[in-house]
Amino acid sequence: MATEESTKAMEDVKIGDAAKEQDDIVDPWNVQSSSETGVDYDKLIKRFGSSKIDDALIQRIEKATGKPVHHFLRRGIFFSHRDMYALIEMYEKKQPFYLYTGRGPSSDAMHLGHLVPFIMTKWLQDTFDVPLVIQLTDDEKYLWKDLTDEEAHRLSYENAKDIIACGFDEEKTFIFSDFDYMGGEFYKTICRIQRRVTNNQAWGIFGFNGESNIGKNSFPAIQAAPSFSSSFPHIFNGRTNVPCLIPCAIDQDPYFRMTRDVAPRLGYPKPALIHSKFFPALQGPKTKMSASEPNSSIFLTDTAKSIKNKVNKYAFSGGRDTTEEHRKYGGNCDVDVSFQYLRFFLEDDEKLEKIRQDYASGELLTGFLKKELIEILQKITSEHQERRAKVTEEVVKRFMTPRKLKFDF
Amino acid sequence: MATEESTKAMEDVKIGDAAKEQDDIVDPWNVQSSSETGVDYDKLIKRFGSSKIDDALIQRIEKATGKPVHHFLRRGIFFSHRDMYALIEMYEKKQPFYLYTGRGPSSDAMHLGHLVPFIMTKWLQDTFDVPLVIQLTDDEKYLWKDLTDEEAHRLSYENAKDIIACGFDEEKTFIFSDFDYMGGEFYKTICRIQRRVTNNQAWGIFGFNGESNIGKNSFPAIQAAPSFSSSFPHIFNGRTNVPCLIPCAIDQDPYFRMTRDVAPRLGYPKPALIHSKFFPALQGPKTKMSASEPNSSIFLTDTAKSIKNKVNKYAFSGGRDTTEEHRKYGGNCDVDVSFQYLRFFLEDDEKLEKIRQDYASGELLTGFLKKELIEILQKITSEHQERRAKVTEEVVKRFMTPRKLKFDF
Repeated sequence: MATEESTKAMEDVKIGDAAKEQDDIVDPWNVQSSSETGVDYDKLIKRFGSSKIDDALIQRIEKATGKPVHHFLRRGIFFSHRDMYALIEMYEKKQPFYLYTGRGPSSDAMHLGHLVPFIMTKWLQDTFDVPLVIQLTDDEKYLWKDLTDEEAHRLSYENAKDIIACGFDEEKTFIFSDFDYMGGEFYKTICRIQRRVTNNQAWGIFGFNGESNIGKNSFPAIQAAPSFSSSFPHIFNGRTNVPCLIPCAIDQDPYFRMTRDVAPRLGYPKPALIHSKFFPALQGPKTKMSASEPNSSIFLTDTAKSIKNKVNKYAFSGGRDTTEEHRKYGGNCDVDVSFQYLRFFLEDDEKLEKIRQDYASGELLTGFLKKELIEILQKITSEHQERRAKVTEEVVKRFMTPRKLKFDF
Repeated sequence: MATEESTKAMEDVKIGDAAKEQDDIVDPWNVQSSSETGVDYDKLIKRFGSSKIDDALIQRIEKATGKPVHHFLRRGIFFSHRDMYALIEMYEKKQPFYLYTGRGPSSDAMHLGHLVPFIMTKWLQDTFDVPLVIQLTDDEKYLWKDLTDEEAHRLSYENAKDIIACGFDEEKTFIFSDFDYMGGEFYKTICRIQRRVTNNQAWGIFGFNGESNIGKNSFPAIQAAPSFSSSFPHIFNGRTNVPCLIPCAIDQDPYFRMTRDVAPRLGYPKPALIHSKFFPALQGPKTKMSASEPNSSIFLTDTAKSIKNKVNKYAFSGGRDTTEEHRKYGGNCDVDVSFQYLRFFLEDDEKLEKIRQDYASGELLTGFLKKELIEILQKITSEHQERRAKVTEEVVKRFMTPRKLKFDF
């Protein structure tokens, strides 16, 4: 049976994946667009075979939860999904689900873009009142990057502090490092997935080849496993059929296409997903921000002064060459990085819309947008820094201890 | 650096491996010989690049330990080695080492052939007074066979009872199931190995291909890891440089060629090895015994009556067609399975030599050899069954608990 299982299946996952004729490259290790306005997300939805988060879905979520959705959903920052209707229906029937997200801990300093999935996840946790598991893939970083396992493990703990500082509820949240948590039912779940994915499939989905190391080659099963409640017996009391919702950036979708393909063959529910667009680099939306290029990003550790400098100096402007021209033709919101950042972090819809109109009409100059943005980012980072300072080793330890959460299963 | 490491190296492991022009197939999953007398072990030594265990080495071991070697060594049943001289030198300098062996738990009933590495290992433990780790690769069996992980895990515990019944010293022995023990420093050691082995290398050594599942593809690192003392901090107190000696059947050598290649790049000592020949099937030495063919093997669970029947009915005879011819031309010890079994289990050298001479001269008939063998096997299995009956769940649990052994590191 094992053989039968591994020879069939997952054809669909490969379709439209490698995307040789496409301009945009989007996989877990590369995001590159040839366009000034960044990745073509509508094309991506088609290529990946996901569904658009449209007004109908948003209304459905608002009806089910009785509250307005987060502006990330309203503004199409989370723009794509899989199986959200089914999940909402379950929620209305009072059937439990859980949230799963994660981070690859490759540097001490997280940047603003890294916050996006966690802000969304916190809103989902607050709104749906469900368990949340957060995977820190220190093993992945060790297998891919030039760093020691000790260093990757240490970064897990540093990043956990930033994640906790986002305000997650300790009674509802389990954060784990793969190096710490590997074993037990988690490892068994990984093996169950590994047995059902062939090398051909993994190479097709992730672009591995003969020169890839064997750890990379099997890693996708490790990122897939937390999608199944069997990985967390301390939370789900041995229940293997609790479905999960994964908020993540769209580049992580290949992992979960694979996961969703394997799920029915394991008798497990397929995870639902919501996908975010990429947070643009200061220099413009052609690329994803990189933690290794200090001036491409605002870091959570940046000072107020540094934020002011970076935004003023590097934030790509959609304004015209001269004030005169700008007043006449207006600015381009689609490429103006300050405006794009405001879409992520300025919560007031009306104010944002007014800025958009006034910038497009030429009434506002880029300088105004930058000033608005600087204030908001200074507030966000300084508040984050305050909260992070309160996250002691003791707090981290509690979040990262396998334990029952406040939910009964 | 990670990339540099993975692109170079391990060329030497591939040389002479796939062995397409050779007649004998010997890898961890297939052993097949075209000859009546079984695998050509001298050729294998050349192909694998190991060294013969000769009289000089045996004398060296006897000098170092001050006692005669086990008859498995004297009779060339363990016939090949890697780095045994270096290990003996270390032993004489009172530098510590440890023993590592294992078993893939794919069936409840172990057969006589399965005992061979454990008998050798017990002798080595008694003689050298060193720690011993025994890996039960239930994850491997799950990835390769059509059985559930629960079943593979259960078989680990059943097989552990048989292994303990071989008489290992609880204070010197740690037995572990991969499903149980996965995690911590063991998992980190596995990742360190995985990062340094490419898909090309694994496919070259183990014959994996695109249809292999990704679990099989990375498994070699899991069998390699116990060769390094970093995998057992509870035994070695964090020391990562304690070398190890691995007694195993020659078909397991590919795992350890890979391990030995990776070792220096990790700064770890290469494991030393001694390799056994295969225990022949009752039907003859053309194949390895198979636990899935009841009449090919004597099982440790067989009754006295069943042993008598099997040996009389199935043990391939090296005798002549008629008594007359036999008396005239003599029997062929090289193909007579009863004689081969006596070489494994009749400890008295003089008696064995007399039987050999008298059978070869035609004085003894096959019936006599079978009778001798039946008595010996009945004694071995009934004593084993008695000892096994005394191995309680409590005893198994003690052997399988990660703990400090009686050695200080």
